[in-house]
Amino acid sequence: MGNNRIWTAALLVIGDEILSGRTQDKNIAQVATWLNRQGIRLEEVRVVPDVGARIASAVNELRRTYDYVMTTGGIGPTHDDITVDSIAAAFEVPVIVHPEARRILEDYYATRGGVTAARLRMARVPEGAELLPNPTSGAPGVRMDNVFILAGVPGIAAAMMEALDGKLEGGRPMVSATVGAYAAESEVADLLREAEAANDGVAIGSYPFFKDGRYGANFVVRSDDGNLVERTAKDLERRLSEAGIEPFSGGI
Amino acid sequence: MGNNRIWTAALLVIGDEILSGRTQDKNIAQVATWLNRQGIRLEEVRVVPDVGARIASAVNELRRTYDYVMTTGGIGPTHDDITVDSIAAAFEVPVIVHPEARRILEDYYATRGGVTAARLRMARVPEGAELLPNPTSGAPGVRMDNVFILAGVPGIAAAMMEALDGKLEGGRPMVSATVGAYAAESEVADLLREAEAANDGVAIGSYPFFKDGRYGANFVVRSDDGNLVERTAKDLERRLSEAGIEPFSGGI
Repeated sequence: MGNNRIWTAALLVIGDEILSGRTQDKNIAQVATWLNRQGIRLEEVRVVPDVGARIASAVNELRRTYDYVMTTGGIGPTHDDITVDSIAAAFEVPVIVHPEARRILEDYYATRGGVTAARLRMARVPEGAELLPNPTSGAPGVRMDNVFILAGVPGIAAAMMEALDGKLEGGRPMVSATVGAYAAESEVADLLREAEAANDGVAIGSYPFFKDGRYGANFVVRSDDGNLVERTAKDLERRLSEAGIEPFSGGI
Repeated sequence: MGNNRIWTAALLVIGDEILSGRTQDKNIAQVATWLNRQGIRLEEVRVVPDVGARIASAVNELRRTYDYVMTTGGIGPTHDDITVDSIAAAFEVPVIVHPEARRILEDYYATRGGVTAARLRMARVPEGAELLPNPTSGAPGVRMDNVFILAGVPGIAAAMMEALDGKLEGGRPMVSATVGAYAAESEVADLLREAEAANDGVAIGSYPFFKDGRYGANFVVRSDDGNLVERTAKDLERRLSEAGIEPFSGGI
């Protein structure tokens, strides 16, 4: 069968702005999608406030539980950007100015007013960390052991992940297929359970919606075996048709 | 002065669909906003998969740490809806069919095909739980001690929260004011730190953006003292103006 190891990750979102409801998070979905493409399963997300001890204890718990930890937020130049300090505290190492990060910032700000004390904050890393390229805005991300420190601005986080594409060890990506139906979940509950039981190794999730005045649900078939996913989706469509419910391949 | 107790909450989002990246979460922001209106601070969010043991251990950790725990997701009629069972396991109590919930479902489904075994699943609660009204779709939410079990569909979760408005004990809501500027964060970092230090009791968060080809940031002043927030926002605007940067009241 080869290597069936499952690689896991957690995401730590650092930000008062998410917990206050001011900002709608956009990083969870994009980190989840990117990790899946790397063959890594996002197993947990936590959102914590901009409080050093809270960040450090979450990082320590998560990095010991999962293969990888991604963090977003708190790596800019302002006083509320405390992610690097908090993660250094978690690893019990000092914070240093990374020479290559300093050079990157000097280049980036050469035509933008030069490196000030505030900007130099963005060259600070936990001792022993490596840099992650930031193709969009100068200040690099940071890798400390299995912890990947990304920007909070979704576009910059996306660019950092793109630069990391294919560089993390992973297993087989999860594959999914969606079948939708205009039917109340409660009408198809038995049929779903039976379809899942008949196709060993898949998980079927049911996600109800109310759209254009009609109730319905999308059924998502997931596995790391693409053929099994396809077979199960067909099986589910057949079962829905036999129950007099029109299935929509690809979902509604 | 009076009662300055700070009331805290955590949100547990239950759902493979969020962790797979398939669904963009919409509950974190609305739960955060609603809690703040009740004078309760959202201090942590976790997202866990549809796995009973994971749900139970997160609930146990969070309910012992915070005054309130809200959960979203996994309370429908299908096989992947395991929230009630998992929370009963966390409290070490059996699951029972709540007589009033059964009556609500019988009424609701009287003209919709009657209560089937699948639908009756939605009347199951941990022993000792109370019901939370669901103004939109029949199946009630559940309150077990300090744990509030809400629907995952954002519109239904919102209706359940609306029905709970003013019913939870809380303290003073956090008040915020936003000041925006087209300036790089690194140019204003010192000024922000000074404004925060000069106004004891506020927190100022800085949230950069890139819009219409220009860099800028919004500065969010927060405290449970509305006058202090207003004074600090004015102070910050003055400091920005003095630095030659145009402040935008209300943010950009």
